[in-house]
Amino acid sequence: MYKELLKIVKIGGNVINNEEALFSFLKDFSKLEGPKILVHGGGKKATEVSSAMGLQPKMISGRRVTDNATIEVVTMVYAGLLNKKITAQLQKNGCNAMGLSGADANCILAHKRIVKDIDYGFAGDVDAINDTIINILLQNNVTPVFCAITHDKKGQLLNTNADTIASEVSIGMSNLYNTELNFVFELKGVLESIEDKNSVIQQINSEKYNQLIKEGIIADGMIPKLYNCFKALEQGVSKVKIGDASLVKSKNKIYTTLSL
Amino acid sequence: MYKELLKIVKIGGNVINNEEALFSFLKDFSKLEGPKILVHGGGKKATEVSSAMGLQPKMISGRRVTDNATIEVVTMVYAGLLNKKITAQLQKNGCNAMGLSGADANCILAHKRIVKDIDYGFAGDVDAINDTIINILLQNNVTPVFCAITHDKKGQLLNTNADTIASEVSIGMSNLYNTELNFVFELKGVLESIEDKNSVIQQINSEKYNQLIKEGIIADGMIPKLYNCFKALEQGVSKVKIGDASLVKSKNKIYTTLSL
Repeated sequence: MYKELLKIVKIGGNVINNEEALFSFLKDFSKLEGPKILVHGGGKKATEVSSAMGLQPKMISGRRVTDNATIEVVTMVYAGLLNKKITAQLQKNGCNAMGLSGADANCILAHKRIVKDIDYGFAGDVDAINDTIINILLQNNVTPVFCAITHDKKGQLLNTNADTIASEVSIGMSNLYNTELNFVFELKGVLESIEDKNSVIQQINSEKYNQLIKEGIIADGMIPKLYNCFKALEQGVSKVKIGDASLVKSKNKIYTTLSL
Repeated sequence: MYKELLKIVKIGGNVINNEEALFSFLKDFSKLEGPKILVHGGGKKATEVSSAMGLQPKMISGRRVTDNATIEVVTMVYAGLLNKKITAQLQKNGCNAMGLSGADANCILAHKRIVKDIDYGFAGDVDAINDTIINILLQNNVTPVFCAITHDKKGQLLNTNADTIASEVSIGMSNLYNTELNFVFELKGVLESIEDKNSVIQQINSEKYNQLIKEGIIADGMIPKLYNCFKALEQGVSKVKIGDASLVKSKNKIYTTLSL
């Protein structure tokens, strides 16, 4: 069955924290043809607002815990300020963006992370994507812009990892679309050598992926990132690309493409 | 031509500031049958966040001016915290709510208020309602929940009066629907005597309205409120109701109905 191409692009702190870089990226994103979805992370603004309000970040075993004050701040910053600033900027550039959280039209249903050793507070793990309403928006030329806030349909908002949202939305839309997931981060792609920013490995399939892990070339933070990418590919996503903000520029040819 | 009934309900600070009252109202609102839209104002949270962040409200001639720091705070609080809290609560109650600002899918286009004597900063006056996309949402059983933030399609978010948003959305949807606008405020309706909270005038038409102004019964803050209601009626809204939070309860019979 022929399926239309849907691009899901995720941006994080490195693009969001610099307004000039963000607006430039959004201009490029607006020019992408066909149905598309943007997912954005948080950035430093939430920390700034928390500090200004005199809140102390609560950490357990080195990991941030989302207490009640924190879920309020991240909802304000992610779903309010950043989401609407991005949406208004896309509208300016002719992209019919609609900023959404997971609570809106129940687009992304999650549950509060189960407490094993550590109670992460109001952290959400995704259960379901509402592909019906997302598809209605796409078919009406609307570009959904998701922040990393979800809900549990019991009235609780939940702080959720933006990479996970991007993966889950991509997987969830794969029944209806030929999905391509783009992760924009600080590097040009997965590198052969961390010392050489231009040593981009352009193609990685499952076999190459296992080989790179064995060789220690994929290490540290890249391990979970690529693990999630391959999980997405195994669950129906057609292609994953990783690169810097120029990933969405049509002329850009340097990035990493992951496939099974 | 037969048009389906669409109810637009506006709630303000008096309902929003008390979480118990808000959640109780949202439960009643969820039970309203047929297509509906909720519009919410701000409440005291924006002032709390501003103070916590050390911002001083900027006033000129006794009126609040929306400077850059203020538009950031109201976007966080109105479009972020309040809008998503309300949406999550409606979802809990089985109402398929979608929280939106005017920037989202360009639902409400506005312009920065023209500077005559006073520059109100980033205050928006509404130019157009996108009835097409709002109708698509309604036809798909989605209940739009608008906060009082709009945009100018040039990338600028604008702080807009929530009563005005409710009126303009009602007027804008009147081509497609038989619209009923409900204003929820602190009283049971327009009162014969401000001393007697139960002296609700149940019906006011244009003639009665002019008579009540002459008699001084409609005075102070009620003058612009009712002026806007009659303006909405003249521009296609079928009916306007004013009352307290029980306005949306099916068994409630005490409120003021305005008609031409």
